[in-house]
Amino acid sequence: MSDDATSVWFARPQPFADPGLPARVQVYEVGPRDGLQAEPQILPAATKIEFARRLYAAGVTALEVTSFVPPSWIPQLADAEEVLAGVDQPAGTRSVSLVPNLRGLERSRAAGVREVAVVASSTESFAHANLNKDREGAIAAAEAVVAEAATTGTPVRGYLSMAFGDPWEGPVDLDTVVALAARLYAAGCSTIALGDTIGVATPNQVARTLEGVLAAGVPVSAVALHLHDTYGMALANVRAALGFGIAEFDSAAGGIGRCPYARGATGNLATEDLVWMLHGMGIDTGIDLEAMVATSQWMSAMLGRPVPSRVVTARTAAAAL
Amino acid sequence: MSDDATSVWFARPQPFADPGLPARVQVYEVGPRDGLQAEPQILPAATKIEFARRLYAAGVTALEVTSFVPPSWIPQLADAEEVLAGVDQPAGTRSVSLVPNLRGLERSRAAGVREVAVVASSTESFAHANLNKDREGAIAAAEAVVAEAATTGTPVRGYLSMAFGDPWEGPVDLDTVVALAARLYAAGCSTIALGDTIGVATPNQVARTLEGVLAAGVPVSAVALHLHDTYGMALANVRAALGFGIAEFDSAAGGIGRCPYARGATGNLATEDLVWMLHGMGIDTGIDLEAMVATSQWMSAMLGRPVPSRVVTARTAAAAL
Repeated sequence: MSDDATSVWFARPQPFADPGLPARVQVYEVGPRDGLQAEPQILPAATKIEFARRLYAAGVTALEVTSFVPPSWIPQLADAEEVLAGVDQPAGTRSVSLVPNLRGLERSRAAGVREVAVVASSTESFAHANLNKDREGAIAAAEAVVAEAATTGTPVRGYLSMAFGDPWEGPVDLDTVVALAARLYAAGCSTIALGDTIGVATPNQVARTLEGVLAAGVPVSAVALHLHDTYGMALANVRAALGFGIAEFDSAAGGIGRCPYARGATGNLATEDLVWMLHGMGIDTGIDLEAMVATSQWMSAMLGRPVPSRVVTARTAAAAL
Repeated sequence: MSDDATSVWFARPQPFADPGLPARVQVYEVGPRDGLQAEPQILPAATKIEFARRLYAAGVTALEVTSFVPPSWIPQLADAEEVLAGVDQPAGTRSVSLVPNLRGLERSRAAGVREVAVVASSTESFAHANLNKDREGAIAAAEAVVAEAATTGTPVRGYLSMAFGDPWEGPVDLDTVVALAARLYAAGCSTIALGDTIGVATPNQVARTLEGVLAAGVPVSAVALHLHDTYGMALANVRAALGFGIAEFDSAAGGIGRCPYARGATGNLATEDLVWMLHGMGIDTGIDLEAMVATSQWMSAMLGRPVPSRVVTARTAAAAL
């Protein structure tokens, strides 16, 4: 398995399947949007276009490319139209843009976007701080976007942020999360992405939340998990969710995505770490792990700092031996 | 939950219990031994003694303090007698020393050690590289230590290294691992610690291995997992093992422990990350998470570099806000 007698094994996950778990998982790559949006250094549109190209080439089949928020909110994503114009979306893949409101939806239509995402909040604090509304106003705005998108048959992914804990309020009421998830589904969202925006969820909490959401009538095929790895819990939570049949997980190449609530802390679950575990569980993702690692090493160079992914870190270290 | 309206929540795991999982877990702290042994900078014995004091004060009840290997093998641990003489072991706790052979057992007895650990290898390559024997020679040496230790009623913890993958050989045969684990148990080991020495295991592999080991007659109460977090899989693997009733897991404060097979890669599973997840699952560990974080922050200062624990990293970042 090694290139020569003294070199270390360039480790790859060995597949051990479990027939009780999904055979295939949709990895929903959020690196270009959630990963980059908190980066203070504005990257050129050409770099973002190249990032998307490399991600699709590595086998990504669902990519959140950008966000149509007002440019003043997130300067990093002010070039949404320019980036989308430059990204060549492979046939059969999803290309998604976040839209905060009807104005964002209009812009996305003009740019030819065929799937959008909206954000609702589990808490009043996050709604006020990030969506500039109260919680009811935020979900109502999301519902308005879903209704308008339906007129053109555009699928809408509904994020429910802070579903497992809130940086200002602390613990979040599970029944509230379940009710909001059911409401997003009833509004017509094609996917409900339960967001552990600050990475505090643990496996039994994920299990209880999924039990609640599924019992409320949201089909398992419409539920995704959007996990951050701030406290290192993301993959244990993915493992818990797989047991419920959840088969769509968000991640960012290299684990990029600074946490605005704890500078220096880890961001999104890293795509490579997710893919390593899934492949090691015999679960197909369609992603070429080596190509993903190379993409994140390239993005690491663009950002001028290491990325937090354990797999990328280990691979980079092993290659330097 | 926050000190004032603008500060972020100083996140703590919220307990969500699952009655099907162990109610209490023994965290087996290996920081002073496995964590420090690969550190090139030799720490003074007084620092190691203070490390042990802080760990016990944080609620650690099983501590692997040092190793009686020949000083030339691991210079960092050449001060085993001096360290043990300075460590005040609290009543009711375990204090364990690694012994590679009968000479090490003799030294440990002279130092008053009441529990020892031995190392067997799942592979020929690791046995040759780290134990200076072939695989059969390594387990025979371990069996000899167990037999001699039995004459004084000393419990022996048996490590089975490279049980999930080997840096030279790649994948490891599961039946071989099961047979070796059963043999260590038959020899009289009180605990069999299955070692993912390079951190490549994934959850279904852990499940299959545990199924095999338990089916071979090793009682669940005698099985522990020794996980490294090189590829970020450790906590997902802990979650899988909890489902089998495994209730002893090895970890190192801060996740210290360089991987000699991939420089720069992450070492042992971090105690804080393990404790965060367990407490979030309503599982008691007896460990004060805040005191553990403070201990690792102190050790980080001693080593002059950040430690890889996600929890320590997030806590350090949040405190700097």
